[in-house]
Amino acid sequence: MDEKMATKANIKDVASKANVSIATVSRFLNGKTERMSKETASKVQNVIKELNYVPNDAARQMITKKSRMIATIVSDVDDYFATEMFKGISSILDAQGYTAVLFDSDSNKAKEQGVLRIIGEKSFDGLIMQPILRKEADLRDAVRRDMPIIIVDRELSDSSLANVVTNNFEISQQVTRYYLNQGFDQVIIITGEVTGISTREERYNGIKSVSSDTMLIEVIDGDTKLNQTYAELKNRLIRDDKRTLVFALKERWLLYLLPKIIADGFMVNQRVAVTGFSDTEVIKAINSGTSLINQNPFLLGASAAELLLNELNGETNIKNKKIIIPAEFK
Amino acid sequence: MDEKMATKANIKDVASKANVSIATVSRFLNGKTERMSKETASKVQNVIKELNYVPNDAARQMITKKSRMIATIVSDVDDYFATEMFKGISSILDAQGYTAVLFDSDSNKAKEQGVLRIIGEKSFDGLIMQPILRKEADLRDAVRRDMPIIIVDRELSDSSLANVVTNNFEISQQVTRYYLNQGFDQVIIITGEVTGISTREERYNGIKSVSSDTMLIEVIDGDTKLNQTYAELKNRLIRDDKRTLVFALKERWLLYLLPKIIADGFMVNQRVAVTGFSDTEVIKAINSGTSLINQNPFLLGASAAELLLNELNGETNIKNKKIIIPAEFK
Repeated sequence: MDEKMATKANIKDVASKANVSIATVSRFLNGKTERMSKETASKVQNVIKELNYVPNDAARQMITKKSRMIATIVSDVDDYFATEMFKGISSILDAQGYTAVLFDSDSNKAKEQGVLRIIGEKSFDGLIMQPILRKEADLRDAVRRDMPIIIVDRELSDSSLANVVTNNFEISQQVTRYYLNQGFDQVIIITGEVTGISTREERYNGIKSVSSDTMLIEVIDGDTKLNQTYAELKNRLIRDDKRTLVFALKERWLLYLLPKIIADGFMVNQRVAVTGFSDTEVIKAINSGTSLINQNPFLLGASAAELLLNELNGETNIKNKKIIIPAEFK
Repeated sequence: MDEKMATKANIKDVASKANVSIATVSRFLNGKTERMSKETASKVQNVIKELNYVPNDAARQMITKKSRMIATIVSDVDDYFATEMFKGISSILDAQGYTAVLFDSDSNKAKEQGVLRIIGEKSFDGLIMQPILRKEADLRDAVRRDMPIIIVDRELSDSSLANVVTNNFEISQQVTRYYLNQGFDQVIIITGEVTGISTREERYNGIKSVSSDTMLIEVIDGDTKLNQTYAELKNRLIRDDKRTLVFALKERWLLYLLPKIIADGFMVNQRVAVTGFSDTEVIKAINSGTSLINQNPFLLGASAAELLLNELNGETNIKNKKIIIPAEFK
């Protein structure tokens, strides 16, 4: 290994051994083979292999200004929804010779701005992000250069950037209506802070648009096992003798609440029903009778990657383009 | 925004406005301020801010050869263990002005090799990886340049690379012994393919080292909800009238099996006990009486990042260094 390192070949070595100009090797490396003969191209390729030549990326980027790397920012890498979305992005980009890399903004505005600044400085060809910042101008200020950006899962408040989202409002409305038709009287919504996160706002508004008897229980920071949240929920379930739908805006909360709700017997005779947004099959494993809203994070990511490729290939104008991926209730 | 783009400042503009040489601006950008006066440094900084100057990264890298980006490769980004590890890595690197970026090898050797090749070509300063390849030589062949590499979670079969792992063998041995002492007769091990993944091999060997009555049920690809696996497990539990420990080498399998085991009444009178490696609190939410092995992926990642920083700062020789993070049983 050390020997190989010591005798590392450079572009000059390749050119001289292949008996072509440096410019020809450079064109070959950048995929511009249309102006050279097949023989030349294959000769250069063989020498590159033989000398085990690795192009200096920084140098190559100076010429092509293309890195074929796409940055993805998600708000929390620990969230299965986010990583499945990333798998969808990768599946499309891989096939086109791009590599997707993942950054975590940790649900933190300052960190998101820092990551954007770094992505702007480095030679990424494009960016797909699940934003915390709400305004396009704030994103642009942080990234500080012109690059294709696709917004996924969430929406900016004022933006012409291409956007891929779930039909959060409509599906929340439909599902609430379904339970009201089954004779449920009130809806208790389990959520984190609603204001500032477009997905939660949409879901909350969807529920409120059809039910006049809703109340909100906010999961507070630090209540990781939802003991406090459940104590509050339990009080309300005991106090109000109504048929109640517990609607969680995120799967993780359901995971902790559902076993407690079952254990306390609230689901007997359908006094209480539980639903919510779900990304995995775990809730069904706990209680197979629960109906849930399944988004399609893989398809959200894949669609965002396709939009980005369109933009990179100059095929279509993606400004103001919006793709809505419907969720399923089952 | 467009106006700002059109009048983008370059390093010459900064130098001329600050009335210093381009070399001085370059030194400033690369943090080499020890040879300039405070006045000069602050003048350059103010001009950079005023002109909203963004250093051309590729150009800067040509000079410094440092990108301050660290690549992380995990075998499956959908795995909570992997992303928590990444959060640990980021927590240490962020504080030192490095940015961690995440790549997914998708548990696929060819993809891992492709990602390694790209990381080798790009200007990452270091690499932390949870490998699928088993030999250092294979990693080196793919990455094709000398760079600091830390191996985390898994072990290579023949390598002097620094390594951070859980005490997989010992904790599996301890936990099995604990259940044998409680009067359990046999151990059924739930796992994916064991051969080739060092963590699984270690766990499997740890269990076998104290129990002579073990059997293995391998979760086959495509049995995502573990219906087939459970059918096989159920047959064995019915056939053998023994007190049985079901030991899952990975949390996800436990999630699907535990509710079925409970529903079929196998846990009554402690006929069957269930344990396994667990990363989240979800199993406890399903059954609070279950004792589990908790690794510390955050600390695994943070320790790997610290080793890498040591290497990058030239502080210590990390060759052959091995850090073992003990898991907890609770």
